[in-house]
Amino acid sequence: MLEQNFINGVDVDKVEGTISTIKEEPDVSKFKFRVHNKWISGGQNHSIVGNFYGAKHEMSHLKTYELDADEPKILAGGDTSSNPVEQLLNSLVSCMTTSLVYHAALRNIKIDELEADVEGDIDLQGFLGISDEIRKGYQNIRVNYKVKTDDANMERLKELSEFSPVFDVVTHETPVSIAMERL
Amino acid sequence: MLEQNFINGVDVDKVEGTISTIKEEPDVSKFKFRVHNKWISGGQNHSIVGNFYGAKHEMSHLKTYELDADEPKILAGGDTSSNPVEQLLNSLVSCMTTSLVYHAALRNIKIDELEADVEGDIDLQGFLGISDEIRKGYQNIRVNYKVKTDDANMERLKELSEFSPVFDVVTHETPVSIAMERL
Repeated sequence: MLEQNFINGVDVDKVEGTISTIKEEPDVSKFKFRVHNKWISGGQNHSIVGNFYGAKHEMSHLKTYELDADEPKILAGGDTSSNPVEQLLNSLVSCMTTSLVYHAALRNIKIDELEADVEGDIDLQGFLGISDEIRKGYQNIRVNYKVKTDDANMERLKELSEFSPVFDVVTHETPVSIAMERL
Repeated sequence: MLEQNFINGVDVDKVEGTISTIKEEPDVSKFKFRVHNKWISGGQNHSIVGNFYGAKHEMSHLKTYELDADEPKILAGGDTSSNPVEQLLNSLVSCMTTSLVYHAALRNIKIDELEADVEGDIDLQGFLGISDEIRKGYQNIRVNYKVKTDDANMERLKELSEFSPVFDVVTHETPVSIAMERL
């Protein structure tokens, strides 16, 4: 009986229960996610992810997760890790994939396999301050999915991937406030 | 002699050389970064980062880097990793930190220590499709830096962090095209 309620590895009863709870008490839906970052040297830095706020409580992951970043040699880094703009593409596609899979599960659409190639175009004249007319970030990002599924049309799956919070942040403006104080 | 040209761990001669080369030949500045993502089950998926295009050539990292994502238990995941929206915060802050440190080096501003707490607000009524009026992504992101440095003012350092490509992507619209085909 329990197994029937798992679709795409998603506990559909649990997600539907969360939706019902939020409809009764909207404050349950307010989450705060956090990262603590420490610069090491040059392009190298290190973050930890441990606690977050959600469902009206302070919560913790099962363990503390670590994330590294560095730049490749051609960008004057040590190449000890993928770099922040590659990690942005990963954040985007993993969020789109999870959103697609969860929303497919809620609609009883079974996904057997799903993979994606992601590519983004950056012109370094922006970041390096050579040109004010060229943007610093990605000019375009392409997400090319391949999916194995029996019972869905491709347009609907694309739409489900757009439920992604990171897709929303990338495709729309999001305010970022910066505070800087002495250590 | 060589050591004099490293500031904040950044090879300033190398970065200035790159800037000179790009000014002579702007096509050198065009980069394409890439990620290949594969869904595992539920909220869990896995990416590899290996090659990229830059300086008019196909290039590779020194090794292939792997990135994982999962959701915490309260979001019906297995909690085997940080999640995509936490990784977005990490991508943002690590890019801002690296941008600050590189641009400080180019201006002969020495940074001794730099760390940041980042927090973003998400209301799950957007992602879950409960409300069309609440956005799916972060409503606000706060980056709170602490810096140890002798010779800089805090406002200037904030401005240098805004050279970040990911900061640009988050605070402005970026087009994302999605293709979906059968595997």
